[in-house]
Amino acid sequence: MTVYLNTRFIKKSEATISIEDRGFIFGDGVYEVWRIVNGQLFEHARHLARLERGLRELRITPPAEATRDGLLAIAERLIEDNDLCEGEGTLYLEITRGVAPRTHHFPATAPAPTVFAFVNRFVPPEELRARGATATMLPDVRWLRCDIKTIQLLPNVMAKQQAQERGAVEAILIRDGVVTEGSHSNVMAVLDGELRTHEANNLILRGITRDVLLEIAQAEGIAVREEAILESDLGRVSELFVTGTTTDVTPIIRVDDRQIGTGTPGPIAKRLYALLRERMGAGARQAVSATG
Amino acid sequence: MTVYLNTRFIKKSEATISIEDRGFIFGDGVYEVWRIVNGQLFEHARHLARLERGLRELRITPPAEATRDGLLAIAERLIEDNDLCEGEGTLYLEITRGVAPRTHHFPATAPAPTVFAFVNRFVPPEELRARGATATMLPDVRWLRCDIKTIQLLPNVMAKQQAQERGAVEAILIRDGVVTEGSHSNVMAVLDGELRTHEANNLILRGITRDVLLEIAQAEGIAVREEAILESDLGRVSELFVTGTTTDVTPIIRVDDRQIGTGTPGPIAKRLYALLRERMGAGARQAVSATG
Repeated sequence: MTVYLNTRFIKKSEATISIEDRGFIFGDGVYEVWRIVNGQLFEHARHLARLERGLRELRITPPAEATRDGLLAIAERLIEDNDLCEGEGTLYLEITRGVAPRTHHFPATAPAPTVFAFVNRFVPPEELRARGATATMLPDVRWLRCDIKTIQLLPNVMAKQQAQERGAVEAILIRDGVVTEGSHSNVMAVLDGELRTHEANNLILRGITRDVLLEIAQAEGIAVREEAILESDLGRVSELFVTGTTTDVTPIIRVDDRQIGTGTPGPIAKRLYALLRERMGAGARQAVSATG
Repeated sequence: MTVYLNTRFIKKSEATISIEDRGFIFGDGVYEVWRIVNGQLFEHARHLARLERGLRELRITPPAEATRDGLLAIAERLIEDNDLCEGEGTLYLEITRGVAPRTHHFPATAPAPTVFAFVNRFVPPEELRARGATATMLPDVRWLRCDIKTIQLLPNVMAKQQAQERGAVEAILIRDGVVTEGSHSNVMAVLDGELRTHEANNLILRGITRDVLLEIAQAEGIAVREEAILESDLGRVSELFVTGTTTDVTPIIRVDDRQIGTGTPGPIAKRLYALLRERMGAGARQAVSATG
């Protein structure tokens, strides 16, 4: 596999960074994941905008080759070299503050940021989606800047691991009695006929898929309310689903011992998913029909 | 400089890790910093115990060479090779879950953890301590497992940077109206004749220096109360100081625009520092007398 690291396209096995990289020492960096459909980055402008916002928040100035057109050129080369012009995949990009002797504050002279990117083939788990997935509730112990897509992901790692050990596909995180999001997805519910999801504040990562789905829902005449679902309302929701760049729309049919709605994927989740795939383009539609 | 990385003692410039190291991708690891005084690790058993607890919490099983005696042997070799048998220094150790393709949950087969260590010469900033330092108040936005010494340090990085830009030495973090700790230190105050510091719960990192100082204070007959200082009480404290492995006891004489106590280092801070240095051993005492 060819990956990109600091201006070079190299084999993954050769891609190494200094142990003084601030990504490794402090988690001092941001990342982004794009969906690739038939060689195209889905919603690339929105992902770029979120990345740029994160870099501004952390005050990391990316090198010229890792900004807009530069990043798209990197993506294009990775997609070609790794044979992803057809079918689906993901692009992962990470930018850290770079390499410097360990001090908590920023280095006096800004080092060159570390820029790392790779692509992977991705096969959407259509069988799971058709069946519906299970989730488990866990306390949200993350920091208060979840709106920045940083590599501060240990709480997400621990939550996802706990979910898996409980036989669940995703963790649904609860803070102060409300559903914030999943360990690596946003959470949506249908409650009293409205599509509900946590407002885009500092407590959640504002998912690109979340935003696209809210747009799609509104265009379809579905009432949308960006207001957190209460933990105590989970028993009343008619549908629950998680959304994200690789999650798309995945219905949750059970949370721990509690059945959600009818215990099968609901109509709004199915409709939103179909429309999302349509928006992803012709290649994506073929993938859908191939898997039923 | 010779560093240690995964069983090898190598030059720092040659010490590199895979970009798939989970430390770099997720911040999935813990670290520890020891003070070295004349070739000896100060309070090494307590640091080891904290490290082991952190590894258990993250469910990382360190390789045999990176446990107790193994770690001490690594430290000894680094101290010798880097000429730190005399004077003072620090030992930094980081252990991550290791290298694996990116998935939030733990890899199905546990990879070999990455073990990285280095030493540095350290000169205690005695002039600053004698003069007293300034601090600035910032909101504590960290996660709710600050009791584990993980590399999830971006909020600490941002706080320390903001402090520095405001001309302050340290940030004093406030959560829900109480002082939790500094960006890389614990905070202590003298209030109504009692030595006060935040209780050792999930909201602070239980500093080794903090614990040693509380022991020393109790032995000296100073009343100790492990209960958070209210932000609203900062105007009433007679002394305020930050503590840590490289901070020792550093008096804070001003927080933003507010003078603390008499605006000079207080008697309890001075006494605790003198006793801490005594406990660090003869070499340390020499260092103190050499700098006044």
